[in-house]
Amino acid sequence: MPKIVDHDERRLELVDATWRIIARNGLEGATMREIALEAGFANGALKPYFPTKDTLLEFAFGHVFNRTNQRIVKVTEGKTGLPALRAFSMEVLPLDEERINEARIVIPFWQKAINDPQKAALHQQSMDEWLTTIRRYLAEARDNGDIKAAIDDAALAGQLLNMLLGAQIVAALAPAGHPGPGLDEQLEGFFTLLTR
Amino acid sequence: MPKIVDHDERRLELVDATWRIIARNGLEGATMREIALEAGFANGALKPYFPTKDTLLEFAFGHVFNRTNQRIVKVTEGKTGLPALRAFSMEVLPLDEERINEARIVIPFWQKAINDPQKAALHQQSMDEWLTTIRRYLAEARDNGDIKAAIDDAALAGQLLNMLLGAQIVAALAPAGHPGPGLDEQLEGFFTLLTR
Repeated sequence: MPKIVDHDERRLELVDATWRIIARNGLEGATMREIALEAGFANGALKPYFPTKDTLLEFAFGHVFNRTNQRIVKVTEGKTGLPALRAFSMEVLPLDEERINEARIVIPFWQKAINDPQKAALHQQSMDEWLTTIRRYLAEARDNGDIKAAIDDAALAGQLLNMLLGAQIVAALAPAGHPGPGLDEQLEGFFTLLTR
Repeated sequence: MPKIVDHDERRLELVDATWRIIARNGLEGATMREIALEAGFANGALKPYFPTKDTLLEFAFGHVFNRTNQRIVKVTEGKTGLPALRAFSMEVLPLDEERINEARIVIPFWQKAINDPQKAALHQQSMDEWLTTIRRYLAEARDNGDIKAAIDDAALAGQLLNMLLGAQIVAALAPAGHPGPGLDEQLEGFFTLLTR
């Protein structure tokens, strides 16, 4: 009987190996050969899963985004308005090693996306989803009177999202072990501005 | 008599060629050969100026930062406090083609800096200079009563800087000709939050 292989499982193993290699060697140093080695695959055994490094990188980004979203679903459960917005934002901020590693994946992805419309569209779609989420929480916070500021919600949502994106750069480039000091204070500052 | 060559001038020509090639082909597509061709240099004539692509990229980033700072000096001349902060921020926001191209340089630089402590330190130094500038303007705006918000200036400065960094990603990844709609409205929204 042929061995039963869980192909989804194998793909995720490859994504994890890709993260570790990119975090260690950078994007250029992450060759398909190195990734195969790290994941314990025979050289050439990656091809059926990811024919090119590009397809692997695209899948890895999609996976980072999904994983972040799964965590967001958990931390926002039962919350609406401002508490939900705070929980969402704290989860996107790179405040621990796992999320700093995610920032180290997403910056190479952005760099690729500058000259790759398909990756740029994938980024845009992800950001549009987040903007929609943020605006829903803002609308709820207006409904219950927590936010009174006479500023368009689209501008507030863009402001918060860009702050969260900028924080990825701060954290990914910070010397190891210093995950961008003050990121959570900045976020609290933004909430204070919003609600006073 | 030997021909007199302005080496600084030649270096800047190479930086301009690098920008055009990176904007067109992406970081990986910008080989030393392509850059030499674009700048009208003989193949191999780059070496005395920039022995590696890395040294060229580092110089190019320093130049982008200096150029932005020269523009900042101009637009903030004679201004203090909030008007100076607004002029500074507007100049960093990627609102025209020149500044969107600068964003397309800085993202590849960030990606490189993740695994290159020397580039990360150069980035950190540039950002520290900007944070100092922002905090000086904030202090002036507090002195004259424009800002009353009971939030630490360090948190406000980090918030604004991260928003400006995030805007580089939005603009660099936006489809050509759409320089991140709403970036200036977001900035105005931030100032409204600060001053109301």
